[in-house]
Amino acid sequence: MTDALALNYAQRLISCESVTPAQGAVFDALEDMLKPLGFRVDRFVSGTGDDNPAHGAPVENLFAIRESGGRHFAFAGHLDVVPPGAGWASDPFVPQIKGDLLHGRGAVDMKGSIAAFVAALHEIPADAGTISLIITGDEEGPAIYGTRALIDHMHALGTIPDACLVGEPTSVNRLGDMMKIGRRGSVNMWISVAGTQGHVAYPHLADNPIPKLVAILSEIEAISLDAGTDWFQPSNIEITDLAVGNKATNVIPAKAEARLSIRFNDLQNGEALVARMQELVEKGGGTLTAMISGEAFLTPPGELSAAISEAVEGVMGITPEPSTTGGTSDARFLTKICPVVEFGLCNATMHKLDEAVAIADLTALTEIYRRVAIRMLGS
Amino acid sequence: MTDALALNYAQRLISCESVTPAQGAVFDALEDMLKPLGFRVDRFVSGTGDDNPAHGAPVENLFAIRESGGRHFAFAGHLDVVPPGAGWASDPFVPQIKGDLLHGRGAVDMKGSIAAFVAALHEIPADAGTISLIITGDEEGPAIYGTRALIDHMHALGTIPDACLVGEPTSVNRLGDMMKIGRRGSVNMWISVAGTQGHVAYPHLADNPIPKLVAILSEIEAISLDAGTDWFQPSNIEITDLAVGNKATNVIPAKAEARLSIRFNDLQNGEALVARMQELVEKGGGTLTAMISGEAFLTPPGELSAAISEAVEGVMGITPEPSTTGGTSDARFLTKICPVVEFGLCNATMHKLDEAVAIADLTALTEIYRRVAIRMLGS
Ligand SMILES: [Zn+2]
Ligand SMILES: [Zn+2]
Repeated sequence: MTDALALNYAQRLISCESVTPAQGAVFDALEDMLKPLGFRVDRFVSGTGDDNPAHGAPVENLFAIRESGGRHFAFAGHLDVVPPGAGWASDPFVPQIKGDLLHGRGAVDMKGSIAAFVAALHEIPADAGTISLIITGDEEGPAIYGTRALIDHMHALGTIPDACLVGEPTSVNRLGDMMKIGRRGSVNMWISVAGTQGHVAYPHLADNPIPKLVAILSEIEAISLDAGTDWFQPSNIEITDLAVGNKATNVIPAKAEARLSIRFNDLQNGEALVARMQELVEKGGGTLTAMISGEAFLTPPGELSAAISEAVEGVMGITPEPSTTGGTSDARFLTKICPVVEFGLCNATMHKLDEAVAIADLTALTEIYRRVAIRMLGS
Repeated sequence: MTDALALNYAQRLISCESVTPAQGAVFDALEDMLKPLGFRVDRFVSGTGDDNPAHGAPVENLFAIRESGGRHFAFAGHLDVVPPGAGWASDPFVPQIKGDLLHGRGAVDMKGSIAAFVAALHEIPADAGTISLIITGDEEGPAIYGTRALIDHMHALGTIPDACLVGEPTSVNRLGDMMKIGRRGSVNMWISVAGTQGHVAYPHLADNPIPKLVAILSEIEAISLDAGTDWFQPSNIEITDLAVGNKATNVIPAKAEARLSIRFNDLQNGEALVARMQELVEKGGGTLTAMISGEAFLTPPGELSAAISEAVEGVMGITPEPSTTGGTSDARFLTKICPVVEFGLCNATMHKLDEAVAIADLTALTEIYRRVAIRMLGS
């Protein structure tokens, strides 16, 4: 019965168009699934006062909980999806079964995972422990009023989980082959070097900023931040842009600019990286501004990753690799309140045209999530 | 009498609006001055079949000659002027005497010089030798159909001068302080490095072209082409532009570009520089395209520069510095047919608002040109 349930729930959620930031119908659908299972459902809209379009407000959030004392295990995720884009074989918001696959935007990222977790709840006794769902409508957007607001809500309730599984699509080639136990941090930096404009025929009257910028960038290219850790790849600096914008071939320009993107592991931290680069750039005659998108975090292998490994081994016969690769997710916020591991469906089609999930994976993931929850609730 | 003549001629030429490319009235005025002096005047329009707007066609040219056997001394110059721009104190095409100065577009670059030379002709006996004037209507523009067409015309006539004085405004602080015995060559180069676009979180799947470009530019910055010569400053490489055009902070771009401008002396040549840079750039993983604007040339100090020095010393009491600085001029074409030196008025206001010439300089320059011509025609 749970087989049919996960597929049915996934179809219902995909049917609700929910391009980020999501509100309304898709949350109604989830609430309708959770209420019969004994969950109290809190829904609230955050960021209503913020009319800066870059902040992606307002955002609907949902916190659902079934309390029974004992340990508290949480599942976190998002109901918003990225825009489908043009060129789908079928309507991205009309779920379609084609052979072994269920097609639709959000099939793997991550309505399918939410469907599997809700299906699993049918097989978890209410007295096994406290279970909550932390579900936002803005993970794919700026994420300012999403999971952060949910954490504020949980603090206000005094309800902090003992561990949290984030249902992002972490599997790569086969369901279960990878989980994420951390994520790298991210910072962007803008370098500007000012000079004095002039004519190329009279270079002594000008001050070309480009050689200074080239020297700064050479020095940056020579930096090896670290060699990585047991759990992280080496921190990496990419120069992502160069800009002078000088159309005149006989003019020495007045300004030269570059942009960096640094993805870093937990041996680094954003502010120290900014300070280090600022010193280097200023010594080279430039100025630097920076924006830290997120710090690195790690949930060192422990009870939660062991529970996931054991469940995956039991259901799939393979051991998930504990990885820290890839971009950021809302796990970066949840890590502040409890141990967090991400585990979910295969990510091959996420954010792409014709996103699809194997129906068999929905069934298997339901059983994996059930086993993880049971083990985390104790016994 | 020659005092009043040079001023009068300058006023008449300035009165004819002749923003580059020049035709018509300004040439009529010059022809009217030369005919009574016994000159045969050939006028022709070049580039009439070329409708590419970048080529600045059609262009009027004038070749005037007074033949009497013996040596042949030529004066070269241009009747076109750069656009006046807005903000003049008085109409740029209505010559205005204000105190010691004559104001108007072309006062120093170079209607004033042409006026001084024509005034000097009044004091040069017709039997002193052959004198010609090589006057184009396009020196300030692309110069494709200007002096080059005049040289073709002279070749067709079989009339090649023994030496040529170009009347560009070469004086800096005081009339006579500088002449130009050569000019540097000029070449622009465009460097492009291709890579593979990707996401900064997965740098191993991308190939960032920026570090390659930075390495190429570092190598170029380390090059010292030469240390200059007795007559030239060192050849100089300027990086004048950098362009990637990547707006997305999390994307590794697919292409990075830079532009160079090289001004070089007669120890270098354009094609060899292009070949050298091409090898360096290709070794670094990029490609290079180039456009040579002109080769370097030098008229080593000799009879003509000595004649100018002697005349300046006699009239002004100072010795002109033989220089090779600054941008290009039509001397780069004339150097192919005979020794060429540039000497003329003070260039402080050339190409600027309220261009003006000291009336006393017109008088002095007339006498200097007269002495140079007499000496070059052979005592
Ligand atoms: Zn997601
Ligand atoms: Zn000129």
